[in-house]
Amino acid sequence: MDFLTIIDYLGTFAFAISGIRLASAKRFDWFGAYVVGFVTAVGGGTIRDLLLDVPPFWMQQVSYMVVTAAALGFVIIFGKYVIRLNNTFFIFDAIGLGLFTIVGIEKSIAHDYPIWVSIIMGTLTGAAGGVLRDTLINEVPLIFRKEIYALACVLGGMCYYLCAHLGMADALAQFIGAVCVILARLLAVKYQVSLPVLKGDEGNT
Amino acid sequence: MDFLTIIDYLGTFAFAISGIRLASAKRFDWFGAYVVGFVTAVGGGTIRDLLLDVPPFWMQQVSYMVVTAAALGFVIIFGKYVIRLNNTFFIFDAIGLGLFTIVGIEKSIAHDYPIWVSIIMGTLTGAAGGVLRDTLINEVPLIFRKEIYALACVLGGMCYYLCAHLGMADALAQFIGAVCVILARLLAVKYQVSLPVLKGDEGNT
Amino acid sequence: MDFLTIIDYLGTFAFAISGIRLASAKRFDWFGAYVVGFVTAVGGGTIRDLLLDVPPFWMQQVSYMVVTAAALGFVIIFGKYVIRLNNTFFIFDAIGLGLFTIVGIEKSIAHDYPIWVSIIMGTLTGAAGGVLRDTLINEVPLIFRKEIYALACVLGGMCYYLCAHLGMADALAQFIGAVCVILARLLAVKYQVSLPVLKGDEGNT
Repeated sequence: MDFLTIIDYLGTFAFAISGIRLASAKRFDWFGAYVVGFVTAVGGGTIRDLLLDVPPFWMQQVSYMVVTAAALGFVIIFGKYVIRLNNTFFIFDAIGLGLFTIVGIEKSIAHDYPIWVSIIMGTLTGAAGGVLRDTLINEVPLIFRKEIYALACVLGGMCYYLCAHLGMADALAQFIGAVCVILARLLAVKYQVSLPVLKGDEGNT
Repeated sequence: MDFLTIIDYLGTFAFAISGIRLASAKRFDWFGAYVVGFVTAVGGGTIRDLLLDVPPFWMQQVSYMVVTAAALGFVIIFGKYVIRLNNTFFIFDAIGLGLFTIVGIEKSIAHDYPIWVSIIMGTLTGAAGGVLRDTLINEVPLIFRKEIYALACVLGGMCYYLCAHLGMADALAQFIGAVCVILARLLAVKYQVSLPVLKGDEGNT
Repeated sequence: MDFLTIIDYLGTFAFAISGIRLASAKRFDWFGAYVVGFVTAVGGGTIRDLLLDVPPFWMQQVSYMVVTAAALGFVIIFGKYVIRLNNTFFIFDAIGLGLFTIVGIEKSIAHDYPIWVSIIMGTLTGAAGGVLRDTLINEVPLIFRKEIYALACVLGGMCYYLCAHLGMADALAQFIGAVCVILARLLAVKYQVSLPVLKGDEGNT
């Protein structure tokens, strides 16, 4: 099990925890919480794989289901104490976001898509799971209103391309791209950086 | 028209009725009710077919649209009296759940997927239509909070594999698997068997 | 840039505007509004392409993202004055609906699907983006309750087939089909034509 795999599982774990906790706030049962956690963790990558027309990644190996089960067990066993780990999960979540973004970009490049499609696919991989999660628990998606989230993926994707364009080794460009996503996300939350809110009209089209 | 086809149509009819009735409670018009009924009936199988990368089953023959139209006509004509048939629809729904689960498992096996993927696909075929239905009518998905539903599909799928593993004929294993789903569902509702509810924290991640 | 392309962009612009305005009413940030606008504009065609198993159209050229960005800029800059253009946008929206419907039908025919599948695909192309939009902003889909919308696509699709069946040139049949959609939509809103509302029961299945 190499370093990237460990990061991948940590990110999956953190994403699943965020889904399970929001499901628990809605009084979902264990099965419902598991589904929401799983969709949060793999939903973005699944949409990406459907759009790229490749087999969904989590159907190739059982590990994503196992990691989600571990996340459910963790929340069930440690219950209220989970809240004390908020900062830890937040960091895992940011690391997962960075890794998922780069994974999505790489997969798109491997299928010969242009830069802009790859960045969208990277962003979907990182951020769309959270949108599906919020749809399942019947809430307005958080990432459309709070601190910068999906935009961190876009920024990191652009950094990655800049580095690759400058002739850096692929692994280095990937690393810098992921770090950009993570830093952008951490700084956005620390300094509460949000995008402006639209105030067009009452929207009664 | 063989026995399985009749069961398939009965299940489709029952699923469509459940969508149409929930849509009517939200004051949808006929078209909206038809769409919700259709999505409830074919939505799970459509997600399965997209994930397996095979042509969606309902695009191969018009019968699923016709059965949904019949369900809409039934609700329009019999209106308030439909409620008296609650038990009948509940039984159709359970039978449909059992059949759809086995159909989903068979289709996945035919595409060489491993056991655990097939059971997920069976469960999606049976239960995901109801989740799409609840998303369309803007409610928290019922199956994440009420009596055991999707878990009945998982149990039935496991029974099926156990039987197949023990060397039973395929048709027999399928029959036992479907009966397991149906029994698990009927008993769960009769004895109000639910999974524990998660009480982790306020989920304010 | 030919005439059809201009119509396509106008329709995309109008659809994106409708998504962005509804997002602004929910106080989404710029990024959220952009996503909702984009999903409104390309969501229907994306579902169609996934079901037909062809590459999603907006991944082939960047113009749909650019038009959505223009729509976002338009709403940001002109803010409250946008509301005065309600009638203009309504007409663009109807024209987009007609064009998208015919595009969806043509694409399905090109993949050898039968009439009824093609009409569904045309209707999905025109109307499903609005359903995704309403799901993202956590509202009950408008088109299931208000004046005739998706049904206009069905009617236009039928006209198109009738014309083609009568031996008309393809371009003429397409034009008549699109005009039918647009007229049906304009007349439905002008005379407030709605389908009957279902009043079955309380739907507590």
